[in-house]
Amino acid sequence: MIELRPGPLHDAVAHLAFLLGTWRGRGRGEYPTIEAFEYDEEIVFDHVGDDYLVYTQRSWSPADGSPIHLERGFLRPGGDGRVELTVAHVLGVTEVGEGPVGPASFSVASSSIGRAATGSDVTSIERRYRVEGDALSYQLDMTTGSTPLSRHLTAELRRQP
Amino acid sequence: MIELRPGPLHDAVAHLAFLLGTWRGRGRGEYPTIEAFEYDEEIVFDHVGDDYLVYTQRSWSPADGSPIHLERGFLRPGGDGRVELTVAHVLGVTEVGEGPVGPASFSVASSSIGRAATGSDVTSIERRYRVEGDALSYQLDMTTGSTPLSRHLTAELRRQP
Repeated sequence: MIELRPGPLHDAVAHLAFLLGTWRGRGRGEYPTIEAFEYDEEIVFDHVGDDYLVYTQRSWSPADGSPIHLERGFLRPGGDGRVELTVAHVLGVTEVGEGPVGPASFSVASSSIGRAATGSDVTSIERRYRVEGDALSYQLDMTTGSTPLSRHLTAELRRQP
Repeated sequence: MIELRPGPLHDAVAHLAFLLGTWRGRGRGEYPTIEAFEYDEEIVFDHVGDDYLVYTQRSWSPADGSPIHLERGFLRPGGDGRVELTVAHVLGVTEVGEGPVGPASFSVASSSIGRAATGSDVTSIERRYRVEGDALSYQLDMTTGSTPLSRHLTAELRRQP
């Protein structure tokens, strides 16, 4: 059996190349219903030569390395200067986010949240990502069934050599 | 910064251990609207010591190794002998699947499909997975906006040493 043979970066995602790489750093979590906490995180934007980027996220406790959260998904061009983010969360939740992309940033608001029977009570998510030099910063706001839109995550990660 | 430090398999997913590993093989794709095709595939069920499995899928052309499809997500226990599968697809689609788990099998039907503005017109997905010895076989049926529930994928993969 031959292997998956990724080609060069697809033209359709050339304008998203600013995201490519492995990013690591420290983030801050908060929400009206919980105590604020810190987390260490790695985000990877990768590609396989097709018309989307592969998004891999994991975060863990700075104290003992135990996992805090994992997300996996894809970022792809939408119509007219927009991007579409599809994400599976560990918490029994899926997310479709859509929004504008700039020269070194994008933001998405959820157009769809899927929730399994025992899934987390998330009802909407808004994300903003920005790259400046070797820094990727993002903010994530979230609504649940009982809490209006509130800041949940803020992080600044560094591009890994 | 310390690293993510995965622990031993979490008790909550001990009954899903039959899925753990890297599985590779050949599959067959079909659908009433397309010509049948073959694909090579790798599926990985992994864990990080928490109460879910990490699901990673990629398939590619047997002819030239070019990517055909990628899926990423998580499998976790639901209530009462059930599992919950959250999946992000490259095609602008997310999927939440729920269904029963047996000693060496599980099946899920989508309870939620999310679709981005330019996403694929999938409206429901049903999956069945079964492990026998070193073989993982699965079937996937799919409904779209214009086609009733029809077989889309059939594959048998071998556990990699």
